[in-house]
Amino acid sequence: MPRRHPTEGSLLAEVERIFPRKVVQKNSPANRSLVNQLSLGIGDDAALFRPTRGCEAILTCDWFLEGTHFLRHKHPPDSVGWKCLARAVSDIAAMGGKPRCFLLSLALPESATGSWLRGFLEGLRRAARNFECVLAGGDTTKRNQIFINITVLGEVQSGRALRRDDASAGDLLYVSGHLGEAEQGLHLLRKHRGVAPRYSRLRKHLYPEPRLALGQWLVTKRLATAAMDLSDGLSSDLSRLCAASGVGARINAQKLPLVNPLPSPHRARQKTKSAENEALQLALHGGDDYELLFTVPRNKASRVPTSFGGVPLTAIGEITATRKILLVANGHKPATLKPAGWDPFR
Amino acid sequence: MPRRHPTEGSLLAEVERIFPRKVVQKNSPANRSLVNQLSLGIGDDAALFRPTRGCEAILTCDWFLEGTHFLRHKHPPDSVGWKCLARAVSDIAAMGGKPRCFLLSLALPESATGSWLRGFLEGLRRAARNFECVLAGGDTTKRNQIFINITVLGEVQSGRALRRDDASAGDLLYVSGHLGEAEQGLHLLRKHRGVAPRYSRLRKHLYPEPRLALGQWLVTKRLATAAMDLSDGLSSDLSRLCAASGVGARINAQKLPLVNPLPSPHRARQKTKSAENEALQLALHGGDDYELLFTVPRNKASRVPTSFGGVPLTAIGEITATRKILLVANGHKPATLKPAGWDPFR
Repeated sequence: MPRRHPTEGSLLAEVERIFPRKVVQKNSPANRSLVNQLSLGIGDDAALFRPTRGCEAILTCDWFLEGTHFLRHKHPPDSVGWKCLARAVSDIAAMGGKPRCFLLSLALPESATGSWLRGFLEGLRRAARNFECVLAGGDTTKRNQIFINITVLGEVQSGRALRRDDASAGDLLYVSGHLGEAEQGLHLLRKHRGVAPRYSRLRKHLYPEPRLALGQWLVTKRLATAAMDLSDGLSSDLSRLCAASGVGARINAQKLPLVNPLPSPHRARQKTKSAENEALQLALHGGDDYELLFTVPRNKASRVPTSFGGVPLTAIGEITATRKILLVANGHKPATLKPAGWDPFR
Repeated sequence: MPRRHPTEGSLLAEVERIFPRKVVQKNSPANRSLVNQLSLGIGDDAALFRPTRGCEAILTCDWFLEGTHFLRHKHPPDSVGWKCLARAVSDIAAMGGKPRCFLLSLALPESATGSWLRGFLEGLRRAARNFECVLAGGDTTKRNQIFINITVLGEVQSGRALRRDDASAGDLLYVSGHLGEAEQGLHLLRKHRGVAPRYSRLRKHLYPEPRLALGQWLVTKRLATAAMDLSDGLSSDLSRLCAASGVGARINAQKLPLVNPLPSPHRARQKTKSAENEALQLALHGGDDYELLFTVPRNKASRVPTSFGGVPLTAIGEITATRKILLVANGHKPATLKPAGWDPFR
């Protein structure tokens, strides 16, 4: 049907202003080799990418929807731009790969095509440079809410990717970072009126950092038998890793790298225990951390440092042959840990 | 946050029932080599794909949103499943490539998780088998409307992809099939109450066929200088091809492969002219045909057959050095053809 006043062109022009096809990307030294691999980017029917010899392609995609994954009146647009790419790139990190290029599918209301779009694209560009992942194409359309879908193409040496299904009984179970930090940030943000302030406690929720260097190091050193990223919360994600590998796990609650409870003027001394329990619940079920969960054979455990690139690595338990997932806490009987992390289909 | 009653698992189970990870796909001979290339499919953080030596990867994605691209009360669910993949695969056809695997991002209301989902997945599976493109992964979430995003990974011999930016003045301009057929189907569907009936006139709108064999043949024979698929309508898409190549075009209205007008009991003989004009407008601006638009140097034109695999190939005009796009009709002065096809940002 004939349509009047087309403005799709102007949306694409804005994307291309922030992500120029060749100029800026070629001028950025980190991206020069990537641009050479990307023989055709935005503007044709599809993108063309030259694979690196000896590598497999890693392919992943993620929704990022207004109302489900972010709130327009709470999350700054540059955080939406950063986080939508960071989440998808985290899946590449979890395979031990390097991100190469990405596709952006964007549905927008007209009210978001001005300063919101500019802020979004700035955050996305900052993430793209940070993760060395170039924009290769996408699709745009109009909707009354903001919908984003990101596809990332990455690479890893053939046969060396970190999968979920190779953990064995006896392997030690590790996590990077502190667990529940992003969920704690979300709780803070919910209490705050209006757009997120620049609290450092919100950083992990607004600008998560996929553990790319750690994933690649685990591949290079052949240390991990299985790995995945923690996106929905430890209790949910660990049960997926165990199901894929046909094993169980035993988690030591005392070993979990908890976040510090939020300071509360109303919290009396006798409530310390409830603050500790709150931190434990965040660590077990809090989503959006994008830390790595990985398993290491016991005889290689001495080669795992206590931190990597400033991020703590913590042994939180072990893989078991029985298919149960148990949580062990001092002075309590081991209890079954049920998946209770983020699930959009609650 | 802890969530009760998770049902995401049951949605994934339904997808895996229709698209079993290994069994069905390995049993289908056409897909056996693809499954070997897809070393890791649904169920991990990401999919792993082994590129064919000497090939480039083609990467494309497409929105398919309820209310924008389809209507739940009009379009049968298996048509939604077929068409969302066909549209994305059409971009691979337009590059002259072979589709290999795809990612499905699906957001669904609970009301659509029963028979709608089964019908959708059946149509999607039929398309996937037809196009020899295996499901490699994706993302699912819950929304109050149905949102789909499809990513397709294809392959083409390095340096041989059909791009949009290599058409030269003097090249002849070709289209496959009849133009406006899908839009005519949409008009019929709009007039019809309830879900689409099984009219053959609706086939092209509900179950479009990407021109994969034609695109691959054009690559093998090195006939086309530029190509793209017609998704938004000739007037809009031709202007994109011309802009990318820095050229113009002259279209001969008499040469356009029109659709037959719909029989109308109310249409008197004197209205024949308006029926013809309707068919012309459909051919110029109708969207969703997924035919190929391609350019061939004049000295190779004799090697283009009048049909390919039962689909007519028609020379509709030529590429010119001036950047204008002109429509020439018998007895009229050449007129500028403005882009007036489908644009979500009307």
